[in-house]
Amino acid sequence: MTHEKMLDAYPKDLGGLDMAKLAACIAACFECGQTCTACADACLSEDMVADLTACIRTDLDCADICIATGNALSRRTGYDAKVTRAFREACAAVCKACGDQCAEHAEMHEHCKICAEACRRCEEACRALLATL
Amino acid sequence: MTHEKMLDAYPKDLGGLDMAKLAACIAACFECGQTCTACADACLSEDMVADLTACIRTDLDCADICIATGNALSRRTGYDAKVTRAFREACAAVCKACGDQCAEHAEMHEHCKICAEACRRCEEACRALLATL
Amino acid sequence: MTHEKMLDAYPKDLGGLDMAKLAACIAACFECGQTCTACADACLSEDMVADLTACIRTDLDCADICIATGNALSRRTGYDAKVTRAFREACAAVCKACGDQCAEHAEMHEHCKICAEACRRCEEACRALLATL
Amino acid sequence: MTHEKMLDAYPKDLGGLDMAKLAACIAACFECGQTCTACADACLSEDMVADLTACIRTDLDCADICIATGNALSRRTGYDAKVTRAFREACAAVCKACGDQCAEHAEMHEHCKICAEACRRCEEACRALLATL
Repeated sequence: MTHEKMLDAYPKDLGGLDMAKLAACIAACFECGQTCTACADACLSEDMVADLTACIRTDLDCADICIATGNALSRRTGYDAKVTRAFREACAAVCKACGDQCAEHAEMHEHCKICAEACRRCEEACRALLATL
Repeated sequence: MTHEKMLDAYPKDLGGLDMAKLAACIAACFECGQTCTACADACLSEDMVADLTACIRTDLDCADICIATGNALSRRTGYDAKVTRAFREACAAVCKACGDQCAEHAEMHEHCKICAEACRRCEEACRALLATL
Repeated sequence: MTHEKMLDAYPKDLGGLDMAKLAACIAACFECGQTCTACADACLSEDMVADLTACIRTDLDCADICIATGNALSRRTGYDAKVTRAFREACAAVCKACGDQCAEHAEMHEHCKICAEACRRCEEACRALLATL
Repeated sequence: MTHEKMLDAYPKDLGGLDMAKLAACIAACFECGQTCTACADACLSEDMVADLTACIRTDLDCADICIATGNALSRRTGYDAKVTRAFREACAAVCKACGDQCAEHAEMHEHCKICAEACRRCEEACRALLATL
């Protein structure tokens, strides 16, 4: 995968980082960001959209934090543990909230089921990375 | 200002929110996001760019979290205190780190001075809003 | 305004740029991005949300291109006329579409009226800047 | 892949869309966005960063338009051919510029080589989709 090749191609040896966990978290963030954007849009086209407005809003928040976190984790220059911790904690918290929201509609809407799973994966990947700090 | 008019035009009465603090925080987030993007670019064009790489990186992270937080605070449907708290805490932490970084070069680079001030304003606005939760 | 101070603080003299038009366009992009995000959210909370889904979707697209364009215009290092033209043309086209969408509901929803105006301002600012290239 | 599952889970039948090309373009946009963010950061950490500032700037612009376009293509509600065309044209143009920039340093920097390839794939995917409109 390209994001793993880019981690390998970084010119400095930073040491001490768990590269497999970092790569997994970057992938999970972009996957979850795209999935939340698509889930918000799929919810918009449901006949019962009026019952899904809280889900749409959380999807939009989750898309924003996942892309922001995926970007921040893709940067390694001038590493600051406090900054990376702040992103991962926020991303895990919003993924938790969005996963819970989507899980409520998972039986009824396939897109919410897929989205809930992507949120869980991203939350776990953020927490796994937090545990290594 | 347009963001204040948009807060007034929201169709539901959500009650209990400190609208002045919310409006100030939204404005501070977008101002800080734009300023950090411009500061990263100004640093890139300095002859001493090699000494400013950590500042550029933190600027880029700060731009990402400020826009994501400004977006999240612009949404009021399906309000979830845990989500909004996660954004504000992350935004305050990254603005603190970026403000500290830029403050180190404030004597030498006017753009870092302006950026440090925008980061302080945004950090304070996020904390002021957190205090009302 | 901070974005004007940042333009002045840029360390290189690039010459030939119409700074007033550039500053106006940067401000219009971030204003329109925030307004579209808030309008999508206000539409979500309307009782007639089912009739506003196309408006919400265009708001979301417009928010994305406005922030991306505001970021690109905030950068001056390694200026490439083809790149800046691509951003402005896309931003003007999407602002046109979003302004038209929101204008259809402007009589009924104040947030759509405010948003349509922000889209018109941003479209015009992008076209005014395109005319100087 | 999750983005393909989300396309399948969209609740309305929109007809006439080339789903394979759309899915490929969404994947290419997010891959290219992440790669450009990582390439800008890798360039920042090179000893010769002062010679790579134009590359870094184009990377940052390309990351912004790729994510904005990936988001827009992930939305299908309220489809407007003019809007989707504007995103794809801008994305193709900026990917062309960034691919050219990175290709100049591809011999010397592996991250620029990988990034140039991601930019070419994304440019082609956008043009392939434009050809179906």
